[in-house]
Amino acid sequence: MKKFLNNVDQMLVESLSGFAAAHSDLVDIQFDPTFVARKQKSDNKVVLISGGGSGHEPLHAGYVGRGMLDAACPGQVFTSPTPDQMLAAAEAVHAGKGVLFIVKNYAGDVMNFEMATEMLPFEHATVLTSDDCAVVNSTYTTGRRGVAGTVIVEKCVGSLAETGADLASCKALGDKINVRTSSIGAALTSCTVPAAGRPTFDISEDEIEMGVGIHGEPGRRREAMREADAIVGDMVAAIMQDIEAKQLPTHGDILLLVNGLGATPLMELYLIYNTAAKLLTEKGFHITRSLVGNYTTAIDMAGASLTVCLLDNEITQHWDSPVHTAGLRWGC
Amino acid sequence: MKKFLNNVDQMLVESLSGFAAAHSDLVDIQFDPTFVARKQKSDNKVVLISGGGSGHEPLHAGYVGRGMLDAACPGQVFTSPTPDQMLAAAEAVHAGKGVLFIVKNYAGDVMNFEMATEMLPFEHATVLTSDDCAVVNSTYTTGRRGVAGTVIVEKCVGSLAETGADLASCKALGDKINVRTSSIGAALTSCTVPAAGRPTFDISEDEIEMGVGIHGEPGRRREAMREADAIVGDMVAAIMQDIEAKQLPTHGDILLLVNGLGATPLMELYLIYNTAAKLLTEKGFHITRSLVGNYTTAIDMAGASLTVCLLDNEITQHWDSPVHTAGLRWGC
Repeated sequence: MKKFLNNVDQMLVESLSGFAAAHSDLVDIQFDPTFVARKQKSDNKVVLISGGGSGHEPLHAGYVGRGMLDAACPGQVFTSPTPDQMLAAAEAVHAGKGVLFIVKNYAGDVMNFEMATEMLPFEHATVLTSDDCAVVNSTYTTGRRGVAGTVIVEKCVGSLAETGADLASCKALGDKINVRTSSIGAALTSCTVPAAGRPTFDISEDEIEMGVGIHGEPGRRREAMREADAIVGDMVAAIMQDIEAKQLPTHGDILLLVNGLGATPLMELYLIYNTAAKLLTEKGFHITRSLVGNYTTAIDMAGASLTVCLLDNEITQHWDSPVHTAGLRWGC
Repeated sequence: MKKFLNNVDQMLVESLSGFAAAHSDLVDIQFDPTFVARKQKSDNKVVLISGGGSGHEPLHAGYVGRGMLDAACPGQVFTSPTPDQMLAAAEAVHAGKGVLFIVKNYAGDVMNFEMATEMLPFEHATVLTSDDCAVVNSTYTTGRRGVAGTVIVEKCVGSLAETGADLASCKALGDKINVRTSSIGAALTSCTVPAAGRPTFDISEDEIEMGVGIHGEPGRRREAMREADAIVGDMVAAIMQDIEAKQLPTHGDILLLVNGLGATPLMELYLIYNTAAKLLTEKGFHITRSLVGNYTTAIDMAGASLTVCLLDNEITQHWDSPVHTAGLRWGC
């Protein structure tokens, strides 16, 4: 394992300290229990709190700021944060209109966020994201996994919350976007968890893991390495099947997110975008919003995921609204 | 070699096509000769044109847009663009006040941009960037190499050009920033040029290349892999030496850029930031602006570079001004 680190046990604290220092205009950080919160506390709005294991940066701390999250609770690498982190974050940022937790569907996260809600002295609701159409049930999951589509939920619900919308409306928008969003990933290499010190799985030079999870969990199957068009074609087909299975329209405006899993160059991500956009346009979709880059990563995995979100006027409007976070910024 | 690609010969065209499609609100692309230009042509201003070998994305096409470049000329991977690309770009975007070329100091780029200027029917000037303090002269360079500091030059001179400043003022600001900027990189792994199909250099699990170039050129020396604090300490020391050798102040406000070379997770970049920021603060600097992420890459290299720019009011003001490009965006 070759990484920029001093001591595996201190890596998260040092990295989060660097994050907080680099973005001291945007966020404050607390340790023991650990959470990242907006520098400028919100007033009279639903507050959005997310969290999960570290290693997916910029998710979630990179999405704390105006127009997105109020706080994020980072766990150790690929390990759920604990309920005391969520409670401390909620206590610090609540702003009179309730707390919305945005939780990726992994058993540990779900359990710990549920424990937090049981102790929470504020009105609350939870949006559980499950956009990964690769597999149902997985190493750490009952039901579908939440992956890069979570960024779209956090962006749009964050925007709605800024307007003063109530908790039920925020939850409803999050749930709607989750249903309208499908993702699938493919890995060329494994990630390496620092504490493990070696790759999570073995994969040869002529194989890919189709449908890989963002922790390196198995996907649909191990496949032969092929040209990008063939791989992306299969990913688009999986997403189309998912959209059809959900009886959602297979035409209309979409947001296409090509997400790097950590070690994939932008040049390849744009090549993937090129193929995916052509295929989705041929299927009848109109790509009106795009995002290409590392938005939900799997530490140092070479690989990428595709996410398609079926837009409507409400989602588009909230996607476009101003946002100012470390990981996503426009309009301010 | 394991990459998302169809055919090595088509990789650049497919990737640039994806880039142009994903950012069709911002840019237009032309092929044969190839350049990326702002969708909305500038009027009555100095136009900024940069370019260089591909493989450093988002540099330079990702910096085309309001507040930065007017056009970028991408060459093949790690290969200079040709003079006809620069001439076609200049012809397409010139806006009545001259053309400023921003060129990283590599022999091929310098020669080709010079050939273009000889044929150029417009008033023109060139800013040559040479922020890399690792080595003097290198595989592809006479004199110091231009690396991630180029982003700061493009951002700030782009801002000045938007105000209607004349060509001489734009060149003067670019030259000033270049002098006040020092960078150094360190590689944990090699990059792999797609057309070569194998790593550019061999490096073992217990070695790093200190001072590596963004094409995988040799740096100062092959060193033992150590903890991050020791590596970053040496990088900061090299930058401090450079600042002192240039007889520039070793106190005052700075911009600190921690740049990933392509395959390094954000978690590690922020850990590097944490150490570098502490050391630079101890030296007497005040870090008032920060940037952390993949801004000038070396394809899929695991590694990072540090860049320190000594700010003054003029540079700070132009760094802060609105910018809307694929790779850098704020204020609009």
